[in-house]
Amino acid sequence: MKIIVVGAEGDIGEAACEELGRRHDLVRVGRSSGEIQVDMSDRSSVDEMYARVGTVDAVVSTAGDVHFAPLGEHTAETLMLGLRQKVMGQINLVLAGLKSVVEGGSFTLTSGVLDRDPIRTGVGAATANGALGGLVVGAAIEMPRRLRINVVSPGLLDVSVPRYGQWFPGHDPVSSERVGRAYAKSVDGAITGQVIIVD
Amino acid sequence: MKIIVVGAEGDIGEAACEELGRRHDLVRVGRSSGEIQVDMSDRSSVDEMYARVGTVDAVVSTAGDVHFAPLGEHTAETLMLGLRQKVMGQINLVLAGLKSVVEGGSFTLTSGVLDRDPIRTGVGAATANGALGGLVVGAAIEMPRRLRINVVSPGLLDVSVPRYGQWFPGHDPVSSERVGRAYAKSVDGAITGQVIIVD
Repeated sequence: MKIIVVGAEGDIGEAACEELGRRHDLVRVGRSSGEIQVDMSDRSSVDEMYARVGTVDAVVSTAGDVHFAPLGEHTAETLMLGLRQKVMGQINLVLAGLKSVVEGGSFTLTSGVLDRDPIRTGVGAATANGALGGLVVGAAIEMPRRLRINVVSPGLLDVSVPRYGQWFPGHDPVSSERVGRAYAKSVDGAITGQVIIVD
Repeated sequence: MKIIVVGAEGDIGEAACEELGRRHDLVRVGRSSGEIQVDMSDRSSVDEMYARVGTVDAVVSTAGDVHFAPLGEHTAETLMLGLRQKVMGQINLVLAGLKSVVEGGSFTLTSGVLDRDPIRTGVGAATANGALGGLVVGAAIEMPRRLRINVVSPGLLDVSVPRYGQWFPGHDPVSSERVGRAYAKSVDGAITGQVIIVD
């Protein structure tokens, strides 16, 4: 398969690429790294990415910003950032990609643990993650040409602990290998409309 | 208790008011109806509402627009409408109301069934509903002064069947009384961070 991986250089992106790269051809895409750059919050930038890459078998997204802040310091704007970036960015990848993915191909998005196991300052992430879970349930039943859509919702990755572990007290880190396999479950499997939890 | 009910004249709002009005004083708020008008997508309008009403014991929201359209006809803008209106509108009610609700008081928001039991044209609603579920999980652990926050997620109401039933094939309508009681569970009970499902 030929697979676009957006956000390939992040910890989750690397886990997905490690697993999928064993048997598939990956096109690594990033905001400022990778073979191709994209601003996924900008539909025209996403359209340009698909035009350059051509037809693919699957699209994997492990990208999306959210703003972390205590609830009392959040404004509508800081909470909207996650909806605009992480949610609408990944929605842009889906809407713009409907014609670029082969029949029966898949979109695999990424949310995260914070809408089921919250942390302080995480309300923006929790909101965005919940939105992505709802999105795939709603979108899966309307996808054209047997296209599939799932979202991987990983816990804190083992490799991310040195940077982020202090914000996740008591969270059991999940192995990058397990997270990578979740992307295989979506890409190489047949499921659709699923939130694939890796805890 | 003194309770603000935003969206009081909708089917869900009436169900909530019928139940809560038996023992509480309700301030009915609507976009163009009720005792007070508010545009909940506009923070200054929400601030003005709280300034007029003064301190309350609870805030109930049963309001929020989403755009219904087939997946293939959705654009970023039509999908954003639900995030902006239904999600950010209700978030505005929470952020602006943190100082207007008494210690131990509650916010009760409203999502809906479409992120667990999807219908055609419902992807915008599914995304918004999921976001609200994530929001309350993330926000509950950071609420000041023992404030609580929950979201009621009702199925299609019996009274809504004549207008919307055709879009919900096979969905068992839920009684307005049961939906009303879900708001009592949040307002009069002690739970927080919960998605209260009424199916």
